[in-house]
Amino acid sequence: MVALGPSPDLDRLVARRGVVDAASAVRSGDVPGALRDRVAARAGVDPAEALATLTRLGGRLVVRTDPEWPAWRVTGLDRLDAVARRDAAAPLALWVLGSANLATCTERAVAIVGTRAATSYGDHVTAEIAGDLAVDGWTVISGAAYGIDGAAHRAALGVGGTTVAVLACGVDRAYPSGHARLLDRIADQGAVVSEYPPGTTPAKYRFLARNRLVAALSDGVVVVEAGWRSGARNTASWARAVGRPVVAVPGPVTSASSAGCHRMVREGEAILVTGAQEVVSEIGPVGSGASESDERDSLFGRRLDALPETAALTLEALPTAGPAGPEEISLASGVPVAAVRSALVVLEVEGYVRRGRTGWVRVSG
Amino acid sequence: MVALGPSPDLDRLVARRGVVDAASAVRSGDVPGALRDRVAARAGVDPAEALATLTRLGGRLVVRTDPEWPAWRVTGLDRLDAVARRDAAAPLALWVLGSANLATCTERAVAIVGTRAATSYGDHVTAEIAGDLAVDGWTVISGAAYGIDGAAHRAALGVGGTTVAVLACGVDRAYPSGHARLLDRIADQGAVVSEYPPGTTPAKYRFLARNRLVAALSDGVVVVEAGWRSGARNTASWARAVGRPVVAVPGPVTSASSAGCHRMVREGEAILVTGAQEVVSEIGPVGSGASESDERDSLFGRRLDALPETAALTLEALPTAGPAGPEEISLASGVPVAAVRSALVVLEVEGYVRRGRTGWVRVSG
Repeated sequence: MVALGPSPDLDRLVARRGVVDAASAVRSGDVPGALRDRVAARAGVDPAEALATLTRLGGRLVVRTDPEWPAWRVTGLDRLDAVARRDAAAPLALWVLGSANLATCTERAVAIVGTRAATSYGDHVTAEIAGDLAVDGWTVISGAAYGIDGAAHRAALGVGGTTVAVLACGVDRAYPSGHARLLDRIADQGAVVSEYPPGTTPAKYRFLARNRLVAALSDGVVVVEAGWRSGARNTASWARAVGRPVVAVPGPVTSASSAGCHRMVREGEAILVTGAQEVVSEIGPVGSGASESDERDSLFGRRLDALPETAALTLEALPTAGPAGPEEISLASGVPVAAVRSALVVLEVEGYVRRGRTGWVRVSG
Repeated sequence: MVALGPSPDLDRLVARRGVVDAASAVRSGDVPGALRDRVAARAGVDPAEALATLTRLGGRLVVRTDPEWPAWRVTGLDRLDAVARRDAAAPLALWVLGSANLATCTERAVAIVGTRAATSYGDHVTAEIAGDLAVDGWTVISGAAYGIDGAAHRAALGVGGTTVAVLACGVDRAYPSGHARLLDRIADQGAVVSEYPPGTTPAKYRFLARNRLVAALSDGVVVVEAGWRSGARNTASWARAVGRPVVAVPGPVTSASSAGCHRMVREGEAILVTGAQEVVSEIGPVGSGASESDERDSLFGRRLDALPETAALTLEALPTAGPAGPEEISLASGVPVAAVRSALVVLEVEGYVRRGRTGWVRVSG
């Protein structure tokens, strides 16, 4: 609550001193210089009040040690270069409303994003793609904005699928206000998520930080319509940074709402797709395994020596033939499921394992 | 007239014995086995009648020794592998109606092709792109078909530009008949061209052979609308084979008439473009009217000169966008597959190319 959003500085403090010590340090103001101003500015915040609001709404606070923590999704974020990317930190906690378990519902998830100024064409195509993916068991993740975001959530809800809205404000705020009822339905059938405590108002830089969670929580990002300069391109840029494929749907070249999609395809930032089937073939799990891990290799470099101990245990516990799920690996290795999930991501980055359709498998050689 | 269209066999005969000797050989039936049936089947043809028809229409026969012969355009065709590509031969002569000089008007030329089943969107976009290019001094080349072809010619005519129609029948035939007046206007303001003598009727395989001339005569091919299976993709395939960039205009994913364009972009066969400016930036160079070899030099700088000849030819034959396999490169370069394979390894070591997932790709810069 002090950091109010991603803070690589606070993240490092927690990593160095543990969360309890870090909290004491923050309370006493005994923090590194970069954090001091932020802490001072937020001296008056009241966690109890935020938690009370959350409880009243029937929500929960999910922290890194919870079984529900989507560790294997957000872990990549803290390995990005914090200097090059402000906000390059995994969240310390997520405020959640809704019935869906964050860890499991993001195991097979697609982000669908786009312009608020959607055309009827964009609405239609979004509904087709999101509906088809949701029917196929994919969780549809978006930002609950007007336009493409809303169409994606609605289509998933419409077919009885799971959908997750990641907000740039507190989960107690209906933003945009016209989507208040939509957000209620999303919470009923999926989850409304934010790293900002209840009471936080939306702000431009929070949307940008939010976009990184939309990207990180998914297997890949679909951009349906986007203007020449568009928030969707920001989400796509985060996706590439954390090694998620980005695909874009073309449209009429006469439509300004497709200009961003065409630009992304032209500049090699996105692969052109025309429907749900092509989305799946690009974002995996089978179709894109190779390119995805190639991307990650080039991003993070090969850091074999830096493999955490849990990763080694996880790899040992993976059967030599055939796939296994995180639970199974956890059972065999004694490593907690959440830690297995992050370890698998690390191992995938390093090229030891890949995500198969029915579980994780060793990469031979 | 005996070959009636491209004939690698006749081409070789002419190359070996000269055109006068080759003509005598054809008249006496003293030709290689592969040609014998063809010659026999066409024993009754009357060149005098065809030439009389051409003269009556005010046309001319342009042969390889004429100053007007677009040699630098069509030469690449006889370097293709005739076994893999039937019709892989430069024409021996072109029958021409019209005011435009073939050699000069194709110095800066763009082919614009697409489906006969054009939508109003396709018509509109074709008119925009062809009009802009023609105003900018580019000759617009197409096949005079209904749909995109017709829209391209009309747009060029409409802005007082130069346009060339390449036919799959004799230039005395108005095909399609509904384009009789359009063909007259094209001849007035540009040229109507065919490698088939007057009197030749259109046939399916002639359209495919014609497509190679549309591609070869231009700096690059623009596909505006194309169905999933489309003649435009055949033209594009010829373009890649002779080293011309191919670009495609996207459209609504809900439109079957854009499915071929999206497919080509997805499969790396075409670069996505949204307007004339992007067309020029892909098939450029801007306003230079430079020769093909200048173009290639500017693409690779001086480095190309330092390479062994097979490596240089291999690199030249690699498409500017998307991957290619050794067979495809061999086809385009005329270098045997085994030599292409070793050349690719050399080029990879030197940093010119890299192995992609689906083939070899250029390394830019």
